[in-house]
Amino acid sequence: MAKKSRLFGGVDIGGTKILAMVVDENGSVVSTEKKKTKGETGFKSVAERSALTLLEAAEKEGLELSDLAAVGVGVPMPVLPDGTTPNASNLPGWKGAPLVKTMETLTGRPCFAENDCNAGTYGEYVFGAGKDAKTLVGLFVGTGLGGGVVLHDHLLVGENHLAAELGHVIVQEGGRVCGCGHKGCLESYASKTGMARRIAWEILIEGRKSILSQSAPDGKFAGLKAGALQEAYRKNDAVAVEALDEMAHYLGVGVGMYITIFGPDVVVIGGGVFEALGKELLPKVKESARRRVFPEQSFRDTKIVLSQLGDNAVGLGAVAYARARLAGRGGK
Amino acid sequence: MAKKSRLFGGVDIGGTKILAMVVDENGSVVSTEKKKTKGETGFKSVAERSALTLLEAAEKEGLELSDLAAVGVGVPMPVLPDGTTPNASNLPGWKGAPLVKTMETLTGRPCFAENDCNAGTYGEYVFGAGKDAKTLVGLFVGTGLGGGVVLHDHLLVGENHLAAELGHVIVQEGGRVCGCGHKGCLESYASKTGMARRIAWEILIEGRKSILSQSAPDGKFAGLKAGALQEAYRKNDAVAVEALDEMAHYLGVGVGMYITIFGPDVVVIGGGVFEALGKELLPKVKESARRRVFPEQSFRDTKIVLSQLGDNAVGLGAVAYARARLAGRGGK
Repeated sequence: MAKKSRLFGGVDIGGTKILAMVVDENGSVVSTEKKKTKGETGFKSVAERSALTLLEAAEKEGLELSDLAAVGVGVPMPVLPDGTTPNASNLPGWKGAPLVKTMETLTGRPCFAENDCNAGTYGEYVFGAGKDAKTLVGLFVGTGLGGGVVLHDHLLVGENHLAAELGHVIVQEGGRVCGCGHKGCLESYASKTGMARRIAWEILIEGRKSILSQSAPDGKFAGLKAGALQEAYRKNDAVAVEALDEMAHYLGVGVGMYITIFGPDVVVIGGGVFEALGKELLPKVKESARRRVFPEQSFRDTKIVLSQLGDNAVGLGAVAYARARLAGRGGK
Repeated sequence: MAKKSRLFGGVDIGGTKILAMVVDENGSVVSTEKKKTKGETGFKSVAERSALTLLEAAEKEGLELSDLAAVGVGVPMPVLPDGTTPNASNLPGWKGAPLVKTMETLTGRPCFAENDCNAGTYGEYVFGAGKDAKTLVGLFVGTGLGGGVVLHDHLLVGENHLAAELGHVIVQEGGRVCGCGHKGCLESYASKTGMARRIAWEILIEGRKSILSQSAPDGKFAGLKAGALQEAYRKNDAVAVEALDEMAHYLGVGVGMYITIFGPDVVVIGGGVFEALGKELLPKVKESARRRVFPEQSFRDTKIVLSQLGDNAVGLGAVAYARARLAGRGGK
């Protein structure tokens, strides 16, 4: 009889939803469950909902939490080596929260936590589009622009455990204001928030017509869904095409920069916008990157590919991270 | 009787001069010698002059090359793992040259070679301003802007051995033309070449008065010496002050970016311009970096300091690198 694969729990705690999964050690997803985060209820309550979501995912397959070798958790904020979260812009009451300790108490299992973009990048490295890479850069375009770097199985987290904030490098000194308060960050161009600012300007200030107006009848374009952008882009809506092409152009500036800095064998591009429009936009990202990489031959040495894990990247990455830490390999 | 320290040879092969040194294993310089590179004579001849310069440095102290445990070599170009140099814009005839093999034949000792900026950064990491650092970023402002990154005793070289070209990231998309042909690279603002473009514009096109005109009577500001810039800055020459302050401002943009990416405990700033004007310019670099780092607390976690090894950084770094490689630690 073949030896049964060990099972792991993975929990992706996002700003709006919790996605929990049971995964075998080869990265096959056995079961998933979702709940709303209800972030306004505070740290303790979100942690309890997360543990409950994972329990329900396990129970779907007749499993208990005690069947899990360990639990990996991805959160939208940095995690310090002591398992606490130093700051959290999205989730009230998480500043200094004892995340790992609380999750261990609630689940009764060893827990390991990482920033969600780091986890997502590590997931692609271990189970996804970066499976054959040694040095991997991940960039995820959603509301913001998140990223992560894996160097020979180690996540780049810096001495302060706050590093690899790949969306917050300046590509246009003095340029567009970013959500972080600085000007000209990569994220202020290469994210849904960045595009929304341009779209709002074109429609509300310049008075241009666009079918995107229907998707934001209140004039608030910040909440635009990737699906609406996809539809408008495919219908050749000029405002949408210009905004998405500009985003791809700047993302390429960032990709070029990270190839120049890290010399990775693979760059993975993911996030909602690229799940919706990856085929159309990836060639534009590549062309922009090609024209900015130094020296030129670095570009030829690097594959630029789409994410393979989609919505499961963070949960699978958290599992890969927990598996590595449990084996004493660190994963960082 | 105390055990005699092992000796190493270090050779810094620059575009204009060769600096060779004998160094003990603790980084104390025993002897140095210099020659002109005469790059136009081609690879073989420059390699022979380099070996000869090292021999003369050794002979000054009554030593022979056979007294050296190993020789480290720093060159102004990338070095591949097989010891060859894939491209070399400064030195004709070095494309594909068997650098390590040739130096081993000429010196009869084990040789290890690295890019000069990587070597300089590694020198600061092992013997200089980064001695207590775990993660170190080095930035050297000279004719161009070179840099290197050390992560827990490993030089960041990427899968292609061409990485860490820290001067060639875009900080002003569509901005000033860089020597590499791209637009808006950090180097196009934060280097002597970048400053020279601005100074030439102010004096030759805008017709402004500046004492820098005396230093470039032929109107060619690209060759401006750090000493001339120092004098003009200290005499409060408006054109010089504006150009150097702009350089410091952009270098700070770069420092902020690299803190955001790497979360280093130390950033070392060096090169001729900072040897001449470090005290005056470092506070401006820091202030510019502080306003761009994300998240803000990363800035407090990072020390930004001046280079300690000066002209010897590359030679000492090459020695440190050879020592590490000889011990099987790699240093990369």
